[in-house]
Amino acid sequence: MSDRPHTPLLDRIDTPADLKALSDDELSRLAHELRQETISAVSETGGHLGASLGVVEMTVAIHAIFDTPRDKLVWDVGHQTYPHKILTGRRDRIRTLRQGGGLSGFTKRSESEYDPFGAAHSSTSISAALGFAAGRDFGMETGDAIAVIGDGAMSAGMAYEALNNAGHLGKRLVVILNDNEMSIAPPVGAMSRYLSRLYAGKPLQDFRSLAKGAVSLLPPPFREGAERAKHLVKGMVVGGTLFEELGFSYAGPIDGHDIHALLAVLRAVKARAHGPVLLHTITKKGKGYAPAEASADKYHGVSKFDVPSGKQFKAKSNAPAYTKVFADSLIHHAEKDRRICAVTAAMPSGTGLDVFGKRFPSRTFDVGIAEQHAVTFCGALAASGMKPFCAIYSTFLQRAYDQVVHDIALQNLPVRFAIDRAGLVGADGATHAGSFDLAYLGNLPGFTIMAPADEAELRHMVATAVTINDGPSAIRFPRGEGVGVEMPEEGEVLPIGKGRIIREGGRVAILSLGPRLAEALKAAEDLETRGLSATVADARFAKPLDEDLLARLARDHEVLVTVEEGAIGGFGSHVAQRLLEGGFLDGGLKFRSLTLPDRFIDQDSASAMYEEAGLNAGNIVRTIMGALGMSSIAASS
Amino acid sequence: MSDRPHTPLLDRIDTPADLKALSDDELSRLAHELRQETISAVSETGGHLGASLGVVEMTVAIHAIFDTPRDKLVWDVGHQTYPHKILTGRRDRIRTLRQGGGLSGFTKRSESEYDPFGAAHSSTSISAALGFAAGRDFGMETGDAIAVIGDGAMSAGMAYEALNNAGHLGKRLVVILNDNEMSIAPPVGAMSRYLSRLYAGKPLQDFRSLAKGAVSLLPPPFREGAERAKHLVKGMVVGGTLFEELGFSYAGPIDGHDIHALLAVLRAVKARAHGPVLLHTITKKGKGYAPAEASADKYHGVSKFDVPSGKQFKAKSNAPAYTKVFADSLIHHAEKDRRICAVTAAMPSGTGLDVFGKRFPSRTFDVGIAEQHAVTFCGALAASGMKPFCAIYSTFLQRAYDQVVHDIALQNLPVRFAIDRAGLVGADGATHAGSFDLAYLGNLPGFTIMAPADEAELRHMVATAVTINDGPSAIRFPRGEGVGVEMPEEGEVLPIGKGRIIREGGRVAILSLGPRLAEALKAAEDLETRGLSATVADARFAKPLDEDLLARLARDHEVLVTVEEGAIGGFGSHVAQRLLEGGFLDGGLKFRSLTLPDRFIDQDSASAMYEEAGLNAGNIVRTIMGALGMSSIAASS
Repeated sequence: MSDRPHTPLLDRIDTPADLKALSDDELSRLAHELRQETISAVSETGGHLGASLGVVEMTVAIHAIFDTPRDKLVWDVGHQTYPHKILTGRRDRIRTLRQGGGLSGFTKRSESEYDPFGAAHSSTSISAALGFAAGRDFGMETGDAIAVIGDGAMSAGMAYEALNNAGHLGKRLVVILNDNEMSIAPPVGAMSRYLSRLYAGKPLQDFRSLAKGAVSLLPPPFREGAERAKHLVKGMVVGGTLFEELGFSYAGPIDGHDIHALLAVLRAVKARAHGPVLLHTITKKGKGYAPAEASADKYHGVSKFDVPSGKQFKAKSNAPAYTKVFADSLIHHAEKDRRICAVTAAMPSGTGLDVFGKRFPSRTFDVGIAEQHAVTFCGALAASGMKPFCAIYSTFLQRAYDQVVHDIALQNLPVRFAIDRAGLVGADGATHAGSFDLAYLGNLPGFTIMAPADEAELRHMVATAVTINDGPSAIRFPRGEGVGVEMPEEGEVLPIGKGRIIREGGRVAILSLGPRLAEALKAAEDLETRGLSATVADARFAKPLDEDLLARLARDHEVLVTVEEGAIGGFGSHVAQRLLEGGFLDGGLKFRSLTLPDRFIDQDSASAMYEEAGLNAGNIVRTIMGALGMSSIAASS
Repeated sequence: MSDRPHTPLLDRIDTPADLKALSDDELSRLAHELRQETISAVSETGGHLGASLGVVEMTVAIHAIFDTPRDKLVWDVGHQTYPHKILTGRRDRIRTLRQGGGLSGFTKRSESEYDPFGAAHSSTSISAALGFAAGRDFGMETGDAIAVIGDGAMSAGMAYEALNNAGHLGKRLVVILNDNEMSIAPPVGAMSRYLSRLYAGKPLQDFRSLAKGAVSLLPPPFREGAERAKHLVKGMVVGGTLFEELGFSYAGPIDGHDIHALLAVLRAVKARAHGPVLLHTITKKGKGYAPAEASADKYHGVSKFDVPSGKQFKAKSNAPAYTKVFADSLIHHAEKDRRICAVTAAMPSGTGLDVFGKRFPSRTFDVGIAEQHAVTFCGALAASGMKPFCAIYSTFLQRAYDQVVHDIALQNLPVRFAIDRAGLVGADGATHAGSFDLAYLGNLPGFTIMAPADEAELRHMVATAVTINDGPSAIRFPRGEGVGVEMPEEGEVLPIGKGRIIREGGRVAILSLGPRLAEALKAAEDLETRGLSATVADARFAKPLDEDLLARLARDHEVLVTVEEGAIGGFGSHVAQRLLEGGFLDGGLKFRSLTLPDRFIDQDSASAMYEEAGLNAGNIVRTIMGALGMSSIAASS
């Protein structure tokens, strides 16, 4: 939405190898051009702008010094890699970011050899880089391994597990800590406070003299090897003891926007590092673009925008977002029930707990990117008598699966899971799809699992979850807006494990779980025009199943189809199992179950992704007619 | 298997409240009696002796000072709680430990109010204790919260996430680090080395003078409050900086077998602690029982034994254990293929990687209790060109579910998962059951999942996994011995996704996955005597499914039953889905799927647990006859 920037140096770069010919001053100018190009591209596509702007100089410096793709550069999360993509042969497609058929918004192995390990979930980079370093030491085709990880990502246990193992193995490995005091929300936790203390009030290290050959200015670990480093380094660099205790050499903090300093220290690291090195850089999220720097979330995720003004073009919404309905409903109940509290893992705004937290600050916990801890912490809150709501996206709850099984389900503790982003999520693509929760929770004894068909249903389900005190419960709801139904003032407590008939029909029945109900109703209307009368039911509960409803649908119809926004092994599988056990399929009832297909679906609009998945009215019609042995050639799609 | 010890003091203790009346010297004598009683009990039941002997004094001291059950004592893992169980009203049942109908080998909420948060998987205690502390500060009925966690458990990211959050929240909380330099195997990792340095060559702290009122000898944090602690404490106690950096007050290390020191410091903690406190105790696994102290694994898990000699009574095995077959087979292939390497998360002997590691030390990685890191580390090893085998128990792989989804399946990386302890496991009970892997892996696109029916099949499957280079694969196999079949010299590469017919029959078909095949064959023989001729097939693969075999079984039989050692949502669900899609159930085929029931099953012998689950020949027969509308009154069970 703006004139393309003037980028004479960048125009000469096809691959990172071209950077080797540039002087340090040229690299500095290149970084400037790269920043303008990134801003321009994201103004057209929307995306994770702030994080990318924070690592422009780092991106140029790493590619200038190291030899990618032989050296393996692993970006944590990967949403900060737009400049990296521009430099690694993907500039021609950078304006397709996050669009259907376009570049992924994250790193992706299948997209480029410069993305040796894809990402999107946080805190995996050190483990991956260590794996490459180990492979290299076995003689595989790998040079150096470099992980770039944010300070927010350091709150996750996985990063600590990897540091712990890397310090133990002692392999040459470079971890660049990109410390911007800001992941999505401001990071929390003792580690974050510790990192701040490492540079608070102290001058950043200036390694530029290294460029002139002053090796003695290097922190000793780079000269002496990791083994002696621990004893030598104290007092030579600022702080860093925690990383040293874990076996790393520590250098920094340095200004991550000072490309000369970055180039100097990376040259030194490359030439002389033994063992694992942690380079602590300080950067600004949104750096170099005033509207981003000035905004509260530093343009973490933005819509298309106007470059001069920074004004974002947001589609006007017709209905409240599910997230907001959840938050408002929870606030409503928390006003009356002091036992209600809420826990998020570094996603206060994504889960609506920012709103809840404003109203009830002491009853809101943001534990950082620490889903495992979040779940077990909720378990004990529940055991103590509180009513914790654990608000985690479907895809991130995978991080805490064992805790859900072992600490919650096995103990039958009344933790309420508010699972946002269930089903397909659009531009964030396959890594963020909430495809598996119905399968991975549905198989756990004692869970109550709800899925609202619309935003009013979500309000009822929050009211219902508040009352479920005898075991764990979950509400899984989608990303984005509701369907625009009238909202009830007050949520109604639903009968547990009971669905509802939406539309009475004759020969065929559609049993929908969640917001595909709208497609089910469309399908029913289409079928009507073909002379097939369809019953449509909303299951409401994935668990426990409504046995009476199942029996009725099975007995009174020739075909029964389930529809859900989840992978195989979930709702449809459980319905099938129950029908089989009851012998309902012995009598000739034709049963089909529409789920997400058994493959990962690349990013696009959520509706286009559901089309591709066949979870639409057209495919419901085709499935039903196929089961009846009828042609559906004229079926609408 | 020995005379009961003489325990006059212990005989007077019904609940921990009775400890309040005892003097410190009496508590010391009580600890001695408690140790003898523990040894005596475990000699009759088998169990986790070493860990329990290491915390006898700690158990007495905590219960003497704190007010359980109002104060919440959370034992990490919970296998060290036999002395705790004896003191908390369960002495009369202590000789039923780990038996069917007896006491659990771990803490368990449903067993006692003195077990406020059950455990069995590692590293959950700090999260749970923090949840109780938060509940207390909301006014719930909870006093102090105390977590006891081993040094091995500190390698898990979850423990770090909890420390990070606890340091941030600043709530009063007691974490006792039980540092015995030994979890199951000797612990590994930089943190472990760091802990050793904290007390290497330095005298342990003696807090006994505190008992005489010398408050000034306390570490300052207990006197001054957590806020000022960080600045005051340096140099006053030995080391501890890492925990201080995370916001904890640190005291120690102290001798965890010196009950006078323990009592003194716990009194001080109770009286004066502000904020989170970490008390570092040094203990010996197996303490006070010479055969345990002398053994390599410190009697981690033992069979029944003779107390005077320590000789364990082990049942003679008739067939090699699956674990050993896996390890031997992997060694065989690794001799020829230098790309094969193996990763375990602190379970070298449980997974057989101790044997592998002896032969190939440089190709074996024990990353500590760090399943998340283990999986992603394997992902990058695979991306670098290696052939990593990731050997993790089914129940513990739950810890790394997101990494399996996001880092392995989504990237289609050829990591080979060797999933030991799949299915029901016997004495370790519900927390260790490998019930869910077929469901939580089966729904992931691109996975190849195998389950051997016997130990020879396992050898073939290891050979097969070595050749699967185009995506992730898994072999799930049970705990314990094989069935005694003849072992092939060389594993054979199986055709991917193809099952095998074991027995040709007529009206009914049984499709088994895994070692239930023996029960399926027994059922077929029983059915034969009833005039029903049964086909029995071994699926071998849970994914991809053998479409041809399914079509054949469906077309040629009236009833098809699947049998698997896993929960709903797994193999049977996938078979049902495929049969439905293919329309095979439209024609009147009766299909049933036998899975684990939708509830948790308490410990017993594995075979008794399978009986209870209905995964036996008798129930297969009953299910088939029921589907045919025939009575099965005379069916054998």
